[in-house]
Amino acid sequence: MWDRVYQKIDELNDKMVEDRRYLHQHPELSFEEEETSKYICKRYDELGIPYQNHIGGYGVVARIEGSKPGKTVALRADFDALPIQEENDVPYKSKVDGIMHACGHDGHTATLLGVAEAVLPFKDELEGTMVFIHQPAEEYAPGGAKPMIEDGALEGVDAVFGTHLWANTPLNHIESTHGAFMAGTDRFEIIFKGKGGHGAMPHQTKDPVVMAGQAIVELQQIVSRRLDPLQEAVLTIGVVEAGEAFNVIPDTAILKGTVRFLDKQVQNQVIDEMHKVLGGIATSYGAEYELDYFKGYPPVVNHEEELNFYLKEGDEIPGVEMTKEVPPVMGGEDFAYYLEERPGAFFFTGAQIEGHAYPHHHPKFNIDERALPIAAKALLHGYKKYQAK
Amino acid sequence: MWDRVYQKIDELNDKMVEDRRYLHQHPELSFEEEETSKYICKRYDELGIPYQNHIGGYGVVARIEGSKPGKTVALRADFDALPIQEENDVPYKSKVDGIMHACGHDGHTATLLGVAEAVLPFKDELEGTMVFIHQPAEEYAPGGAKPMIEDGALEGVDAVFGTHLWANTPLNHIESTHGAFMAGTDRFEIIFKGKGGHGAMPHQTKDPVVMAGQAIVELQQIVSRRLDPLQEAVLTIGVVEAGEAFNVIPDTAILKGTVRFLDKQVQNQVIDEMHKVLGGIATSYGAEYELDYFKGYPPVVNHEEELNFYLKEGDEIPGVEMTKEVPPVMGGEDFAYYLEERPGAFFFTGAQIEGHAYPHHHPKFNIDERALPIAAKALLHGYKKYQAK
Amino acid sequence: MWDRVYQKIDELNDKMVEDRRYLHQHPELSFEEEETSKYICKRYDELGIPYQNHIGGYGVVARIEGSKPGKTVALRADFDALPIQEENDVPYKSKVDGIMHACGHDGHTATLLGVAEAVLPFKDELEGTMVFIHQPAEEYAPGGAKPMIEDGALEGVDAVFGTHLWANTPLNHIESTHGAFMAGTDRFEIIFKGKGGHGAMPHQTKDPVVMAGQAIVELQQIVSRRLDPLQEAVLTIGVVEAGEAFNVIPDTAILKGTVRFLDKQVQNQVIDEMHKVLGGIATSYGAEYELDYFKGYPPVVNHEEELNFYLKEGDEIPGVEMTKEVPPVMGGEDFAYYLEERPGAFFFTGAQIEGHAYPHHHPKFNIDERALPIAAKALLHGYKKYQAK
Amino acid sequence: MWDRVYQKIDELNDKMVEDRRYLHQHPELSFEEEETSKYICKRYDELGIPYQNHIGGYGVVARIEGSKPGKTVALRADFDALPIQEENDVPYKSKVDGIMHACGHDGHTATLLGVAEAVLPFKDELEGTMVFIHQPAEEYAPGGAKPMIEDGALEGVDAVFGTHLWANTPLNHIESTHGAFMAGTDRFEIIFKGKGGHGAMPHQTKDPVVMAGQAIVELQQIVSRRLDPLQEAVLTIGVVEAGEAFNVIPDTAILKGTVRFLDKQVQNQVIDEMHKVLGGIATSYGAEYELDYFKGYPPVVNHEEELNFYLKEGDEIPGVEMTKEVPPVMGGEDFAYYLEERPGAFFFTGAQIEGHAYPHHHPKFNIDERALPIAAKALLHGYKKYQAK
Repeated sequence: MWDRVYQKIDELNDKMVEDRRYLHQHPELSFEEEETSKYICKRYDELGIPYQNHIGGYGVVARIEGSKPGKTVALRADFDALPIQEENDVPYKSKVDGIMHACGHDGHTATLLGVAEAVLPFKDELEGTMVFIHQPAEEYAPGGAKPMIEDGALEGVDAVFGTHLWANTPLNHIESTHGAFMAGTDRFEIIFKGKGGHGAMPHQTKDPVVMAGQAIVELQQIVSRRLDPLQEAVLTIGVVEAGEAFNVIPDTAILKGTVRFLDKQVQNQVIDEMHKVLGGIATSYGAEYELDYFKGYPPVVNHEEELNFYLKEGDEIPGVEMTKEVPPVMGGEDFAYYLEERPGAFFFTGAQIEGHAYPHHHPKFNIDERALPIAAKALLHGYKKYQAK
Repeated sequence: MWDRVYQKIDELNDKMVEDRRYLHQHPELSFEEEETSKYICKRYDELGIPYQNHIGGYGVVARIEGSKPGKTVALRADFDALPIQEENDVPYKSKVDGIMHACGHDGHTATLLGVAEAVLPFKDELEGTMVFIHQPAEEYAPGGAKPMIEDGALEGVDAVFGTHLWANTPLNHIESTHGAFMAGTDRFEIIFKGKGGHGAMPHQTKDPVVMAGQAIVELQQIVSRRLDPLQEAVLTIGVVEAGEAFNVIPDTAILKGTVRFLDKQVQNQVIDEMHKVLGGIATSYGAEYELDYFKGYPPVVNHEEELNFYLKEGDEIPGVEMTKEVPPVMGGEDFAYYLEERPGAFFFTGAQIEGHAYPHHHPKFNIDERALPIAAKALLHGYKKYQAK
Repeated sequence: MWDRVYQKIDELNDKMVEDRRYLHQHPELSFEEEETSKYICKRYDELGIPYQNHIGGYGVVARIEGSKPGKTVALRADFDALPIQEENDVPYKSKVDGIMHACGHDGHTATLLGVAEAVLPFKDELEGTMVFIHQPAEEYAPGGAKPMIEDGALEGVDAVFGTHLWANTPLNHIESTHGAFMAGTDRFEIIFKGKGGHGAMPHQTKDPVVMAGQAIVELQQIVSRRLDPLQEAVLTIGVVEAGEAFNVIPDTAILKGTVRFLDKQVQNQVIDEMHKVLGGIATSYGAEYELDYFKGYPPVVNHEEELNFYLKEGDEIPGVEMTKEVPPVMGGEDFAYYLEERPGAFFFTGAQIEGHAYPHHHPKFNIDERALPIAAKALLHGYKKYQAK
Repeated sequence: MWDRVYQKIDELNDKMVEDRRYLHQHPELSFEEEETSKYICKRYDELGIPYQNHIGGYGVVARIEGSKPGKTVALRADFDALPIQEENDVPYKSKVDGIMHACGHDGHTATLLGVAEAVLPFKDELEGTMVFIHQPAEEYAPGGAKPMIEDGALEGVDAVFGTHLWANTPLNHIESTHGAFMAGTDRFEIIFKGKGGHGAMPHQTKDPVVMAGQAIVELQQIVSRRLDPLQEAVLTIGVVEAGEAFNVIPDTAILKGTVRFLDKQVQNQVIDEMHKVLGGIATSYGAEYELDYFKGYPPVVNHEEELNFYLKEGDEIPGVEMTKEVPPVMGGEDFAYYLEERPGAFFFTGAQIEGHAYPHHHPKFNIDERALPIAAKALLHGYKKYQAK
């Protein structure tokens, strides 16, 4: 059966490209993807595949129940776009000013619709149930995965697979990592509450600028001295805001930053040590601080067996020329939540356009559309292998 | 003669108050004091005292030549206001939205006009020449003193005296300091030019936020380790601007601050050491920095003999109850430029309103108008003593 | 054949214990192991196995050439002791004051002698050649491995295996890691050359104490900001030496420390960044620094296939109950040099004494001697597997 | 009378030089000046001037009561030497190995003995009582002044004068300062009590080396940010002691340093802020610190009127060519204690040898002996002026 399904996918290639380009022209920001959600529903309506919408927001969950007994396996695609002005000169350029599918989620959605359409004719031969999770709001924490799961998207599901079309990975390649594949990504905001005053009278103030300077320097010790050297982590301060006049010591200074990690255990350690460092600095000035720490997506941690469908047996997927274990990626993905709940795997499907090396989230980002059928077959491969397990 | 002059001043008290209140209601910002300048000229026209206007901008210089031989001594008053919304509930409240005489320069001007009017009748008995320098733009570097001097305001002048009505000094008190009385006040802006990037990939960047953090901490060593401990100085960073997104390392970070010092020699040392510290930090990242250092007013350094007219012999001034040497003030004054060119002294005339303790530049700042005749007599005292010298 | 060899090993158990205890009582420091070397030679003489001594110092290389064709595979044991006063109360306690086999090298040597004696009777059946590398001076960089290799110890050798009896690993367990298993371990010494002077006159000095303080803080940025977050590394300063009198600023300050890393590429990056950081600090004072960086042992990097003999097929070794991939160990081993030259693997053989939890290099360190025959069989396992490859 | 006394001093010149050279050859360390004390007593015995010895240790207090009524005024000379090996090639070189009068106290003593001998013949004409305080142990805190005062040396004394022969001041010059002339000099020792461990496992430790590094950097903020910029102060760390092995993180790190200040109020502020800074650092590591702060000599603060005998009327002293107000000196002197108890003044008497510019405490330090009679007359000048007051 699977060979015929794969063939069907190849036949659906143009349709997938069409879907992808339509979505590319009509991007919507995270949590605002109403029309995209309707488009997906309309496509399932056309196919006659049952679905539920408004799952955890604009989420859509469709399902094809095979006639043969088997496990329930979900495949997931996200569908939100980014606040970026497209700079590609293509016929299917974004029609929305300042919004762009600059991360390939248009392709993810088109791929998953293609999978559904390709599998549908083989419903009678299909073992198990195939669930199609169309998820909004991947780009913006707290994300769309969590509310969809809370709203039942994984009920009855035994395993889950997902892929990201990846512009830095060559076409026909599959990449992933054992264990943590993508990072936990948190956000924080620190406020030092000192006491301002005249720039010429520092002794009458509690200078929050100096506290901020010390904090920038000393917070680096968390990664270098206070975490296990074998634990990968990053703590970056991206924003400093302090003061308005060159000769006035302000009352407060604000630092905003991000923490990345691959092992969830590290997260609370970092928070703990941040409090220690910041507390020490504030104490030394008789001042106060606030740390607002927003836990973002946890690390995407692959499950051993399910990942091996790709890293060890990925070359069984038609068209895949190379599967490769790569170092973890310090970016985040809310696919992490699915893998906290169910076995499964997440992998990159190569979609690099040769000679057009723009990274994700770049105004000139684009994907090689030949990656769509590969991604479709790769997702099906997870389903197939999991049934056979 | 002087007793009669003093008496005349007392008689002119109401007129001085009137002038002051008129100016208070019609404040103008530094370098924009066109109407104030005209008002002063009009008053000299009324008195029939010759003057020159448009001296180094809106500056006005009047003069009364005594019939007796003697020295030429200038008395100076500044006349600009501040971008502050007045919050005093007084009948003579500022009529200009967002602008206020919140530093007492209205009083300085009224005082000096009073002096001129009081001395005029005694022209025949007067030894020497009395010069009245009405200066704009004291509040905003590069200030009005420098262009007035360049435009000839001190030509033929042997000595110069000035006072500041001071809201923190009790009425009938005179205060000043031997040597440096008010600080040199400079401004600087530092830009670290690093290389931005993803917050999760610090190793691919040259992080200007960390450079800024180090700079904030290490620049403090200039005052504590690199200057002579007997040299007073302050280096304060009032503004930090870096980054826009919490998870993006920016390309640049900006620090803005002020340097204060009492000995002009310190200035170049500070600049030199700042370059060393910043250069060291930039070097250590293979990055670059820029230091834009704007030299502001030099320290106000009193001349020994002329200051002693006030600190030692100030009690000869009618109404003065106490003269006091106080520690230097870390604020600046462009009266400094006059004292770099000519002998003279600068002193505070107490104008504190009991129970209304608002500092200079505060929306509720005000002066006790009874200080005006004291200030007038105190300025005349300098003239008188210098003639007798 | 191998079953009979394994059986022979069990029969030699007491002899191995005897050898181990003799060596334990007669420990010698790195590069001074003359008597230990002689003892090993004497044992090979007794067995009639040919050997060469004085290989790269006190090194001994013996060999048993099997009658059957095959590959040449070396097994390595180190034999130096440590400058530690033994605190164990055992009949075979060290007889040398202040010197102790506190790392188990006595056991390694006894094990390898046992292997030789066990294999000898089966020479005719043996495929390939078994080489016994007895290496001095593992504990003290630059170590004994490098000179032995330079002196030809690996000539004709196809692969090499080694083990460490490990007091933190349970008996009958085998542990190792894919890729980097033990860290590269470097040593450095930094001297800041400032200009001393009176403690009350910091401005006349170039204070090396402040430079050292800054360096301690800023060198931490190398690990946290300047290396790829996925690269494990540690930079620790263990010693600071500066000044003799509390009120005198010294001319110099010295920092001594260690760098650990798992990827050799990191080493030069760290050196490079250290120069940048230190150069920046020295520059900022117009002072000078010296960095003496001593490259120690490189990381022990296991070869994939050879390691899999242990991690995947280690349960074939009689007596081994569990094989386990563990996180890398940040300590170093000069076995690294063999693996830079030849395929092979290095692993821990569990030797934990229950209820006697003292780490390596502790005065109460000891091993469970039942680990000796396990280690012997495990080394033979590498030989056997490599022949079969 | 005074002219004859001055003449007598000139006649005693050789005797003063003789005394000075004898003492120079027989130096004794602070608190060990038994023979020097005996020598002084012997000299008073010879003169027949009554004295008390063993005042607060080896202190000697002699007195000449004038026949005329008047005030009791003390003149003070210290008499301890230093642990320095003399490198001068002079006939009167120190005969004691490793001990040297390298600060001129030999000259002080000879001067004061000369004063006594010169005044004695004029006892009948003398107004008031002249007290000669010979003080041991000036060089080493807690010093000899305090115990002498506690033992009654100032009982009945109305005022006190003292001088230091100063090798950086030209012959025939007198120098001093209004207010604080010499600094308060304190000593401190900081211990960070962390938790040591393996250099490769910083996360298992509380690294006191990093704490020490931070402390060195951040303690500088006390002078630059936390004290009034008009308050002169120095905080220097002269000694850092941490660790023994490059690859072991130690349990503790020690910093030793000095604090200098000119206003006693600053002292407690500094201690307070040191606790804040150190507490902040320790807190941030969950570690502990100890600050042992030893208050040394307070600042030498001259009394206005008594100082003016020298700065304003010093040119009345025969031989004095110039009197000069100089910036304060950041070194300390336990003469401070006398001035805390009684009015008086302390000043430098120029004793520079042209072309032999070695500072105090240098192995080649020496004084121009022609300064001795000047110093004698200058001390008498204080007595004379105070009587006339």
